[in-house]
Amino acid sequence: MIKVFTDEYFMEKALQEAEEAFAAGEIPVGAVVVAHNQIIARAHNQTELLNDVTAHAEMLALTAAANHLGSKYLRQCTLYVTLEPCVMCAGALQWAQLGRLVYGAADEKRGYLRQGNGLLHPKTRVEYGVREAQCQGLLKAFFKARR
Amino acid sequence: MIKVFTDEYFMEKALQEAEEAFAAGEIPVGAVVVAHNQIIARAHNQTELLNDVTAHAEMLALTAAANHLGSKYLRQCTLYVTLEPCVMCAGALQWAQLGRLVYGAADEKRGYLRQGNGLLHPKTRVEYGVREAQCQGLLKAFFKARR
Repeated sequence: MIKVFTDEYFMEKALQEAEEAFAAGEIPVGAVVVAHNQIIARAHNQTELLNDVTAHAEMLALTAAANHLGSKYLRQCTLYVTLEPCVMCAGALQWAQLGRLVYGAADEKRGYLRQGNGLLHPKTRVEYGVREAQCQGLLKAFFKARR
Repeated sequence: MIKVFTDEYFMEKALQEAEEAFAAGEIPVGAVVVAHNQIIARAHNQTELLNDVTAHAEMLALTAAANHLGSKYLRQCTLYVTLEPCVMCAGALQWAQLGRLVYGAADEKRGYLRQGNGLLHPKTRVEYGVREAQCQGLLKAFFKARR
């Protein structure tokens, strides 16, 4: 049983978003933004649907969360995302001064960490590896089916 | 007289966008995207209006250009922007596989080059310093007025 208000719980919600992306033929990455134990935004990758390289799950979730809060800054928020953010998304999270980032699978090829540790805001706390196998597995299944 | 189809000409158009941002109380950065000597997208910073840290001139211009072309990739395009792009925008330009980037003023504090040369797509050609004094002057005037 998944307990509510744990990182695993919220990552499951991000995984549900990733599954929606998968079903829509999008690279399966999902994200939710949580403030005070409440999900205030959820999104999945829509680069194909919107024909827009900027339509990553994180970017859409971040914009939706700012709309919800009426604030550009997400200092009190946690972003759960199934895959390590790319450089673009890390740059956006830096501008948003995100409070906490939790991601599932690492992305050695396109993840922000290939640039070292300096892209996020210095106050953003980071955890990773939450539901890693499921997050990674969904991506693997997607690319296997496309080959 | 400004000749058409030069970098200076298109940077003037980006500067006009930056001036619109200035008039709207936004940090004055403007951008245009050019394909085959035609402007296919123009935008200015709207982070305040849209209450969204991702609404940089480059991001909005890139999304508009992709809409215009019906293609996510901007390999044949030049982006003119009055200020050196930040890490987020450089990451987006990398995903878009931008053909050429021309910027006006350097941004030593928040520009992508503080991360070294690796953020853009390896095929993106870069020029800078076009109408630098005007691009920089507009930003200085904006921040001076805010103090």
